Amino acid sequence: MKNSPTTLTPTPSQYGCTNAAAAVLTRFHQVRAQTLALKAPLSAEDMSLQSMPDASPTKWHLAHTSWFFETFVLAKFERNFNPFQADFKVLFNSYYNGVGEKHPSSERGLISRPDVATVLAYCENITARVDALFRRGAASSEAIQLIVLGCHHEEQHQELLLTDIKHLLSKNPAKPQYKTRWPLVSVNAQPQQWAHFAGGLINIGHDINAPFFAFDNESPRHKVWIDPFEIATLPVSYGQYAAFVDAGGYETPDWWLSLGWDWLQTQKITAPLYWQKHENQWHTFTLHGMVPIEANTPACHLNYFEADAFARWMSATSATHRGVRLPTEYEWEQMATASAISVIDAIANANLLSPIFSQNALHPLAPRDHALASTTTPAPQQLFGDVWEWTQSSYGAYPKFQAATGAVGEYNGKFMCNQYVLRGGSCVTPRAHIRSTYRNFFPPDARWQFSGLRLVR
Amino acid sequence: MKNSPTTLTPTPSQYGCTNAAAAVLTRFHQVRAQTLALKAPLSAEDMSLQSMPDASPTKWHLAHTSWFFETFVLAKFERNFNPFQADFKVLFNSYYNGVGEKHPSSERGLISRPDVATVLAYCENITARVDALFRRGAASSEAIQLIVLGCHHEEQHQELLLTDIKHLLSKNPAKPQYKTRWPLVSVNAQPQQWAHFAGGLINIGHDINAPFFAFDNESPRHKVWIDPFEIATLPVSYGQYAAFVDAGGYETPDWWLSLGWDWLQTQKITAPLYWQKHENQWHTFTLHGMVPIEANTPACHLNYFEADAFARWMSATSATHRGVRLPTEYEWEQMATASAISVIDAIANANLLSPIFSQNALHPLAPRDHALASTTTPAPQQLFGDVWEWTQSSYGAYPKFQAATGAVGEYNGKFMCNQYVLRGGSCVTPRAHIRSTYRNFFPPDARWQFSGLRLVR
Amino acid sequence: MKNSPTTLTPTPSQYGCTNAAAAVLTRFHQVRAQTLALKAPLSAEDMSLQSMPDASPTKWHLAHTSWFFETFVLAKFERNFNPFQADFKVLFNSYYNGVGEKHPSSERGLISRPDVATVLAYCENITARVDALFRRGAASSEAIQLIVLGCHHEEQHQELLLTDIKHLLSKNPAKPQYKTRWPLVSVNAQPQQWAHFAGGLINIGHDINAPFFAFDNESPRHKVWIDPFEIATLPVSYGQYAAFVDAGGYETPDWWLSLGWDWLQTQKITAPLYWQKHENQWHTFTLHGMVPIEANTPACHLNYFEADAFARWMSATSATHRGVRLPTEYEWEQMATASAISVIDAIANANLLSPIFSQNALHPLAPRDHALASTTTPAPQQLFGDVWEWTQSSYGAYPKFQAATGAVGEYNGKFMCNQYVLRGGSCVTPRAHIRSTYRNFFPPDARWQFSGLRLVR
Amino acid sequence: MKNSPTTLTPTPSQYGCTNAAAAVLTRFHQVRAQTLALKAPLSAEDMSLQSMPDASPTKWHLAHTSWFFETFVLAKFERNFNPFQADFKVLFNSYYNGVGEKHPSSERGLISRPDVATVLAYCENITARVDALFRRGAASSEAIQLIVLGCHHEEQHQELLLTDIKHLLSKNPAKPQYKTRWPLVSVNAQPQQWAHFAGGLINIGHDINAPFFAFDNESPRHKVWIDPFEIATLPVSYGQYAAFVDAGGYETPDWWLSLGWDWLQTQKITAPLYWQKHENQWHTFTLHGMVPIEANTPACHLNYFEADAFARWMSATSATHRGVRLPTEYEWEQMATASAISVIDAIANANLLSPIFSQNALHPLAPRDHALASTTTPAPQQLFGDVWEWTQSSYGAYPKFQAATGAVGEYNGKFMCNQYVLRGGSCVTPRAHIRSTYRNFFPPDARWQFSGLRLVR
Repeated sequence: MKNSPTTLTPTPSQYGCTNAAAAVLTRFHQVRAQTLALKAPLSAEDMSLQSMPDASPTKWHLAHTSWFFETFVLAKFERNFNPFQADFKVLFNSYYNGVGEKHPSSERGLISRPDVATVLAYCENITARVDALFRRGAASSEAIQLIVLGCHHEEQHQELLLTDIKHLLSKNPAKPQYKTRWPLVSVNAQPQQWAHFAGGLINIGHDINAPFFAFDNESPRHKVWIDPFEIATLPVSYGQYAAFVDAGGYETPDWWLSLGWDWLQTQKITAPLYWQKHENQWHTFTLHGMVPIEANTPACHLNYFEADAFARWMSATSATHRGVRLPTEYEWEQMATASAISVIDAIANANLLSPIFSQNALHPLAPRDHALASTTTPAPQQLFGDVWEWTQSSYGAYPKFQAATGAVGEYNGKFMCNQYVLRGGSCVTPRAHIRSTYRNFFPPDARWQFSGLRLVR
Repeated sequence: MKNSPTTLTPTPSQYGCTNAAAAVLTRFHQVRAQTLALKAPLSAEDMSLQSMPDASPTKWHLAHTSWFFETFVLAKFERNFNPFQADFKVLFNSYYNGVGEKHPSSERGLISRPDVATVLAYCENITARVDALFRRGAASSEAIQLIVLGCHHEEQHQELLLTDIKHLLSKNPAKPQYKTRWPLVSVNAQPQQWAHFAGGLINIGHDINAPFFAFDNESPRHKVWIDPFEIATLPVSYGQYAAFVDAGGYETPDWWLSLGWDWLQTQKITAPLYWQKHENQWHTFTLHGMVPIEANTPACHLNYFEADAFARWMSATSATHRGVRLPTEYEWEQMATASAISVIDAIANANLLSPIFSQNALHPLAPRDHALASTTTPAPQQLFGDVWEWTQSSYGAYPKFQAATGAVGEYNGKFMCNQYVLRGGSCVTPRAHIRSTYRNFFPPDARWQFSGLRLVR
Repeated sequence: MKNSPTTLTPTPSQYGCTNAAAAVLTRFHQVRAQTLALKAPLSAEDMSLQSMPDASPTKWHLAHTSWFFETFVLAKFERNFNPFQADFKVLFNSYYNGVGEKHPSSERGLISRPDVATVLAYCENITARVDALFRRGAASSEAIQLIVLGCHHEEQHQELLLTDIKHLLSKNPAKPQYKTRWPLVSVNAQPQQWAHFAGGLINIGHDINAPFFAFDNESPRHKVWIDPFEIATLPVSYGQYAAFVDAGGYETPDWWLSLGWDWLQTQKITAPLYWQKHENQWHTFTLHGMVPIEANTPACHLNYFEADAFARWMSATSATHRGVRLPTEYEWEQMATASAISVIDAIANANLLSPIFSQNALHPLAPRDHALASTTTPAPQQLFGDVWEWTQSSYGAYPKFQAATGAVGEYNGKFMCNQYVLRGGSCVTPRAHIRSTYRNFFPPDARWQFSGLRLVR
Repeated sequence: MKNSPTTLTPTPSQYGCTNAAAAVLTRFHQVRAQTLALKAPLSAEDMSLQSMPDASPTKWHLAHTSWFFETFVLAKFERNFNPFQADFKVLFNSYYNGVGEKHPSSERGLISRPDVATVLAYCENITARVDALFRRGAASSEAIQLIVLGCHHEEQHQELLLTDIKHLLSKNPAKPQYKTRWPLVSVNAQPQQWAHFAGGLINIGHDINAPFFAFDNESPRHKVWIDPFEIATLPVSYGQYAAFVDAGGYETPDWWLSLGWDWLQTQKITAPLYWQKHENQWHTFTLHGMVPIEANTPACHLNYFEADAFARWMSATSATHRGVRLPTEYEWEQMATASAISVIDAIANANLLSPIFSQNALHPLAPRDHALASTTTPAPQQLFGDVWEWTQSSYGAYPKFQAATGAVGEYNGKFMCNQYVLRGGSCVTPRAHIRSTYRNFFPPDARWQFSGLRLVR
């Protein structure tokens, strides 16, 4: 690995570029280095397999994120552009019809060549060539915008790399570990409380003129009317969810959306993904291997159906939770922006993916902010990190939404159908990647992400 | 047919019941008679077959609507209740888990017995027993509410009976007619114009205290903020849609949602449902057999994917339609309620299903209201009837939505996932059934309903 | 029903045709009348439904057997031929590519029109027109051969009509009866014994010059070497098969062919088709409704996998059945032709489908020939009728097999792959249809026929 | 690689074992070394992927063949047996129910761990421990029989390793090479002639008392009657098969078995596996990459449907091939044993898999034996090697067949359903593995083996 620490902190003078460009370059190198750090515990075999059509091999993530820079930046801005290898154009295109042909996503696990060594050489080559763009002062403002997009794109794939490798390892009867670090921390239980918000005619979304990055689907900023609401200070925990499972939740159609009940019966689902009962104790597969569930930790790997069913069950069976449901994404965003604590602090202290590999829990943690819990006005905790929180909002366009032009316009808009919004990031979301307006989205049956829920009433 | 006209107009004195109850009874008899009128052109064989899992045999619709009254009204309010036939409880349950077991919906076409004659006897028996409830003065206010619900329920099945029989007949290579009446009317083309609406903080939905019926999913009435918008005075026509097809619309991924493109490719779709090209002219199957498409008539049998793709294509390729898209259901509802013309008049004059069988077009018609077209302020036409209009709104719960209690609570809420809202009714929607707050919903790939679209910008 | 008995016995003088032709005509009328007798207990609804892709509606069988005469006889030999209805050519073609397009066999249950009345008119019309061919002396020897083939073809469909309607009625939760006649006969148990055959270089198959009909797949007659063998005097009974089921036969992979075990696990099969356990007693669905199984009656509705698994289980677990297996079709044929009793007598006394509707058991019967059972040399019983007997022989071409020319050449040859031979006929095989060289064939997972087995060692 | 050549030729004195045992040990080391030679050109990534459920990763073949020796030999005969790794028992069991649980065969491509290095260590460990059995004189006659079986088993997997890796590489858009050696040899065309055989009552199969190995399915030796026949001196060539394709063979139902036509239409098959047309010239994928087809070389990768269809087409369209068909396996065996030339010579000179890796063509070759071609009595060539030859014989048990006892009894018998016999070996069959009684078998739709055909009449 040639990306030595010194290359991570270019200065404007070194490259003869502006401060702003230097900052982007620094970030570029950090993101590229973080991707390589994530693959470090994996063998060539680990990196080459595909465990289901929705997941991709690690090797593919490495190549595709490089392909993104090659296709959208280098092909346009590099002098005398030559592709690293001509057939990568098709092989590592994910879904951009505007770029041309694509290799079928369900067959990414059939490509033994290029091998991992070649893919790593590709990564290094692309990193060096993007770096050289800056060095030559050829990083125009348009190029820089695309490089910024490419960094955010790569951070998304860092998360997918981890959720996908977790799924692959889970299919191995030996249940191997990605990383050996367990137990993660000691746990002190905290009571869940309710935080009140006033609603009204509020502004939602990212202001397109704000001087920081957001995806096109977070804009335009627009008015929404919401009623007052109370929201749980903590996400639903493993202990709460296990009570639902053990109470026969997966055998009772009353709690389930019609599609959810069909899914559950067709797939013969009786518990959340990765759960197994050994000697009367629920265990779950983690990136640290099989472990017993920890009651006070946020439950994860739930899909929309499971999150919604849990809320209905709580509403119907717990006197103190009468009327609970999933929040809308507007309620969630108001909670995040109108809370007493600063968003910046919340993100800084959250259980998110850190650039320092050894610090990563790679699993949700129990609530940590005892100061908040002891205040007289209850405030939401764990907004960011730990688990993505399902909202009841269908993923759609904000009013006057405009997809970006060109092939990168395929980034978000064409997926606005039959998906639901998740907010807040998870323990495998890169820290620099999340913000309060961020809209993640998955189909209602997807559950290999670190996804949980928070109740509202 | 024993339901002679005289039984359709009971008077309070005849039955010793209140005026309100008498009105419900009148409506009950009208609805029951209308269902029987719809099956009149069909043979026992026509009524017994099922052409796809989403569709049901006519015989099943007849039995199920009777089952609804038997299960939710008679079983509770009839003295010494005895079921007409015990095994109908399972056989004609559609999806009410609260009522017990159900016969699988995909196997409704495997039930040759009871035969049609027995099902008709069942219909007659139920009609007579509900009638007798009133006669004995046993129609409590709770019973009457459920009878009203049963009437609306039956009207939904009248529409489904027609869409399902159309689908069945279309599978017959001989393309037989349900009814012989073509051409329907002479057509005078009208230009499409744009009607302006101001938006703002508006009220949407049905006021739960209003003295007329609405389904639970139309309530509560609540505030929504919408921006100003312009909406087309006419739905998209066959002529416009054929231009999209002939311009290669079904071969160009740019116009399609990602799921829509998958659907189109997997199913090898190249044109709307029921379209066939004969000698360079598009034809479509109707309840009157195969006919050439009529350019100025609203296009129908489009699904959400097709409606959305058409709008994107128009936006990208027509200078006068830059920025068009599907409306939200809030925009649609404001259009319907804030228009100059009265909703009652609009419904009265619309191409909807009439109780007088011979008057039914059973197919969308070209715009008829030339008065409106000639005014200086363009006003939307064909709001009601002709074709259901897809909105871009995912079908979800209004804020503070409460499902009805008991088994009828399964009516709407559990379907609030991966479906999209349609508004306005179609040429096969019973006239008494539609209103401006009415929310129909179907999955985005469903296209056997009379569904089209109207553009907004 | 216009086919009055008098039309069933034409004399040569009546028609001015030869004795041979008159005999064919007599048979033709008998076959046509028998088909109509079989549909008599059925409603229009019963006759129109299709319960699975392998089965066809009764209405289709009626039309297709008429189509066969229209297509292969009338179209060629009738003066000024006009089809009864032009689109029947496609609609009622089963699988003859040589005749042109076919309506998909899995969509036969989607055709409500022509209705049953029209199909019956079609039957009557075709019967009359074939009759007229004779009357005018236009029944050439080639035509007569095709009419004979058509009669045998129709008898095959008589059997399918009954197996298919049984399957349809079984899908109805009410388990309705086709015919009301139960119990069928009183049962006296008989011991199963072993009959010995010497084998050697024997002749198998139908001599193509013999003066009676056989299908092309029964010829040419050819030499086969077989070793000496012993064969059971009775087919395997319900009692024996229930012992296998109750001994965990369906949970033990040891007894099953690899494909059979896959089938059983994928389809979640735990017992033979139509079996249900009520209060610890096995019941089975019959054309007379649900009845308890009768231990001494031949087991039926077994597929090849089940027949083979039973034999392996018997061989491994019963000291007196060591080495039992399914017979080859050559062993079966030698048993049939080398037995002491005459084939003609055996067929005359067998439980086969009789032209006299009231005599039909429509279910296998217990062994009846007590005389045979008491002889000192054990002789096989129930060779013909009751249940088809699976052989271990793959269905293939006899040496020097020649398919018939023209479209009727598609009758047999193209199905010679992945099917296994059954011999002897069943309780729903028309008596005139069976013979000792007759080769029936079905895929190894098919079990809706009246199929059982006889052990050999 | 520690298996240096010197270890390949143990002498009895070295090990203190008998000559017979020493010969088995020599063969054991040769087989083990050959497997390792076959994987030499492959990367860890190549060895880990699975391209379809029927194929297995190279890594799995390496582990499974070692597992066979560990499970059936070492577990029984090694003192203080300890498994190399306990969970391999489940992971590398292919289909032996008697051994216990199995990892699903379709998920062999989801196992990234053990990695390739561990699997190679496993191979080496098992080789050493089996070697040590001999060294200690613990190789009993029963053990030696199982080791011999294990060698033959491993040779089967050598062939599968090559067919499976060929399939995997073919899925890569870059069409990579396994080996670089093309063109293979220069080709001189030879005319196809007919060789005559007399038939009669002949003996077929392996004599169970013969002093050399054969699988259980080749016995007992038994009598079969066959008629005289003529058989082609050469297998069908690429040139002949391309004529069939170019004549519209894949669009004409007349040539196809009913199941074959279904297969072709459902799978949208228009040419043999691996064929692609570039600039009007057929090319095919080989282990040496994409190459133009060579007209005089035997066609391969045909399935039973394709082989059978070709024969029907030839019979119907070529005057000189009237009546051609696939041979029975008895005809094939008589051809092989009654030919003038010696089976031993034929095998020695055939294009089979050689222990010397560089000598392997890994693709069928054009006929080479010009001496034979020039004799006045035409003699069959290329009986062994080049391509497996489909016979018309369904794969079934020979009379009085007894499966081996214990888990190895699952080797053959349970697959005797819906498969067809192939004879003669291919260019990737190990030379020591083939013999004239050898019965290979595959389902009729399988075409990833090197399978072709030879015509008979």
